[in-house]
Amino acid sequence: MAIQTEQTVRRERLLAALQSMRVNGFLVTALPNVKYLSGFTGSNGALLITRDRTLLFTDPRYQTQAPAESDCEVKVAKGPLAKEAQKWFKRLKLKSVGFEQNRISYEEYSELRDEIKGIRFKAIAGIVEALRMTKSPAEIATIRASVQLNSAALQQALRHFKASMTEVDMAAEIEYRMRRLGADRPAFETIVASGERSALPHAHPTDRPIRSDQLLLVDMGAAVAGYASDMTRTYAVGKLDAKMRRMYRAVLESQLAAIDAVKPGVSCATVDRTAREVLRRYGLDKLFIHSTGHGLGLEIHERPRVGRKEGTKLEAGMTITIEPGVYAEGLGGIRIEDTVVVSARGSEVLTPTGKELVVL
Amino acid sequence: MAIQTEQTVRRERLLAALQSMRVNGFLVTALPNVKYLSGFTGSNGALLITRDRTLLFTDPRYQTQAPAESDCEVKVAKGPLAKEAQKWFKRLKLKSVGFEQNRISYEEYSELRDEIKGIRFKAIAGIVEALRMTKSPAEIATIRASVQLNSAALQQALRHFKASMTEVDMAAEIEYRMRRLGADRPAFETIVASGERSALPHAHPTDRPIRSDQLLLVDMGAAVAGYASDMTRTYAVGKLDAKMRRMYRAVLESQLAAIDAVKPGVSCATVDRTAREVLRRYGLDKLFIHSTGHGLGLEIHERPRVGRKEGTKLEAGMTITIEPGVYAEGLGGIRIEDTVVVSARGSEVLTPTGKELVVL
Repeated sequence: MAIQTEQTVRRERLLAALQSMRVNGFLVTALPNVKYLSGFTGSNGALLITRDRTLLFTDPRYQTQAPAESDCEVKVAKGPLAKEAQKWFKRLKLKSVGFEQNRISYEEYSELRDEIKGIRFKAIAGIVEALRMTKSPAEIATIRASVQLNSAALQQALRHFKASMTEVDMAAEIEYRMRRLGADRPAFETIVASGERSALPHAHPTDRPIRSDQLLLVDMGAAVAGYASDMTRTYAVGKLDAKMRRMYRAVLESQLAAIDAVKPGVSCATVDRTAREVLRRYGLDKLFIHSTGHGLGLEIHERPRVGRKEGTKLEAGMTITIEPGVYAEGLGGIRIEDTVVVSARGSEVLTPTGKELVVL
Repeated sequence: MAIQTEQTVRRERLLAALQSMRVNGFLVTALPNVKYLSGFTGSNGALLITRDRTLLFTDPRYQTQAPAESDCEVKVAKGPLAKEAQKWFKRLKLKSVGFEQNRISYEEYSELRDEIKGIRFKAIAGIVEALRMTKSPAEIATIRASVQLNSAALQQALRHFKASMTEVDMAAEIEYRMRRLGADRPAFETIVASGERSALPHAHPTDRPIRSDQLLLVDMGAAVAGYASDMTRTYAVGKLDAKMRRMYRAVLESQLAAIDAVKPGVSCATVDRTAREVLRRYGLDKLFIHSTGHGLGLEIHERPRVGRKEGTKLEAGMTITIEPGVYAEGLGGIRIEDTVVVSARGSEVLTPTGKELVVL
C-alpha cells in the first residue's frame, strides 16, 4: 500500500480543482506553492503537474537536497526553470497548460508564450493560494509551534530589556532569541518602535534609545519549519498619560471584539467592521489606517485579507491575525495582534502572551 | 540653487535612457527600483515618472514615512498601487507608458492593460537594473561599510565558536552580531553547514552539532542602509585529510585567479572561465556547479551574473562577488567568496577577512 504524503493529498486536491479549467498540465512558479505541493524548500524551483506525473525543476545547487525533500521527479536544469519546464510541455504531449497568473512576471509569461505555439497557455488565478487558505491539522500544529516559539522569544528578550537600550538592540535581542529557540529566521523584519515612532505602523528599528514615559511597540514573527507566526504588543515604558491609556483600552477592546466575531461562516469584512466599530465609539476609527488582519502560513501575508472589502467567509482551519491599531502622528501608536485559528464553532487564540497593559 | 539629491540624478539618467523608447511615462513596480529612484524604503510603493513629475504611490501605513524619505510627490492610496497610478495616466494625459516587464506579474499587467484603452502600455526590460549595475561613490562607500560590518560580525561570532555547538547556534550568533553592529538584517539566510552538509551549496543550518575533523562552511551577508554584503569562508574544525586540503588549495587558487581577471572591459564569462580553468587543472571543475559570482547592491543578487554565458563587460563601479566552490557529495564542500568592486584599472577586494585555511 502506497503511503500518501501530505504533498500527494495536496496535489490531488489541486488536480480536482483544476478539472473545470480544462488544462492537462499546470505550471507552478511561486516558491511557497512549490514547497506546499512538493516539500522542496530550496530557493529556486518550479513544478509541472499533470494527472500522471509531477516534475520538480531546480538548479544544480539543489541536486542532492531536492530528491531528499520531495517525492516528485526531480529535473536539474542549468538555465531558467520555466524554459526547462516548457520542453516538457511537448514531451508530455500537453495541449493546454495552466500557469499562475499572479506569480509569473509578464516577461516570463511572454517568453513562454512565444515558444509554445500550438499549446494553449492559460492564465489561472490563485488556485494554490485558495487551497492553502485552509490549513491541515499538521500545518496548524506547526503554526502553533511557531507562535509559541515567538512568544517565548519575546519573554526572554524582555528579561534583557532596560530603558536606554536602543530599538536596534532590542530587535537584535528578539531575533537572537528566536534563532536560539529554533526558528528558521524572523518571518519579517522585526519592528521595535518607541515614542512617536510607534505611530509609523512599519517603522524600522533605529539607534534611538528607548526612553521613559513613552510607548514601545514590538511587532515580531518567527518562521518555524517554514510556517510564520505574527504578534504585536505595545508596552508602557514608565508612565503613560490618560489619553494614551484610553487609546490602549480602545485597541484592546477592539481586538477582543474582533476575535469574538471570528467563526466559520462569518465574512472577513464583518470581522474588520467589528474592530472598527469599537474604535468609532472611542472616536479613534480614523486613526486605524490598515486592515484588521491577514491570513498567514508558509507566507507572512496570505489570503484571506481581513479587510473592509473582503467577502471571503471564514472556515475552520484558516489561520489569521487580528491586529487593530491606532496611530496618532507625533504622539505614538498602539497595536495589539494575535495569531488566531478558526475552529469548528468559533476560534482559538494561539498566542499565549498576555494583553493587559504592561509597564516595563 | 536647487540641490540635486542622488535620486534626482538617477531619475535624470533614467529619463535619458527612456528617450529612445518613445514613452512619456514610466511605471516602476519593483521595490528596490522604487527605493533607488525615490529614497523610499517602505514595503509597498510604486513610482510614476514623467519628464515633469515623479509620483510616489504608497498606502496609509507610510503616509508619514514616505514624504520624510523621498523628494517625490507622495500619493497615499487605499487599494492596489498600480490601479492608483493608472488613474494618473489619464490625468497627466500620457499617451504611452512603459512598465517593468520583469517586475510586474502577468495579472497586474493584464488588469492594467484592460483598463487603459487608448494608452499604449509598453513592456520595457531591466532598464533600472541596468542603471543600478554601476554604483556611485556613495553606494560603493555603503557597500564597503556593509562588507566591513559583515566581516566584523564573523570575527566576533568566531570568538564564541566551540566544537559541539550546533549549526543553528552559530548562525544565531552571527546574525546577532550583525544586528548589534548596526545591520538592518541579514541580506539572506545565513548558511552554516558542517561536515558533508557543506556539500549542499544552499544548506539551511540544522540542530546538528559541529563536530571535529570536518569542514565548516559559513556563507553570510548583511544589509546595511539597504545595501548587501556577501562572504563565504570554509574552515577546518580540527584536522582535515590531504584530499580536503588539496580541494581547499584549488578553490583558493581559483578564487584568486578570478579576482585577478576582474577589470574594466573584461567580460563576466571570461572571469567565470578563469575560475573554472584552475579547477579543471585539479580535476575538480565538474564539482563546481554554480556561477562564479553575481552583482550585489540593493539586492543580494543583481546584474551582472558572473557566469559562463554572460557577455556583459565589467565596468568601473560594478560590485560583484567572486565565489567558486567545489562540492563532493557525501564528503563536503568548499567555497570562498569575497565582495569585489571593479576599479579604474583592475579591482579592489572589499572583504578584509583572510582566506588561508584556518583551523578552528
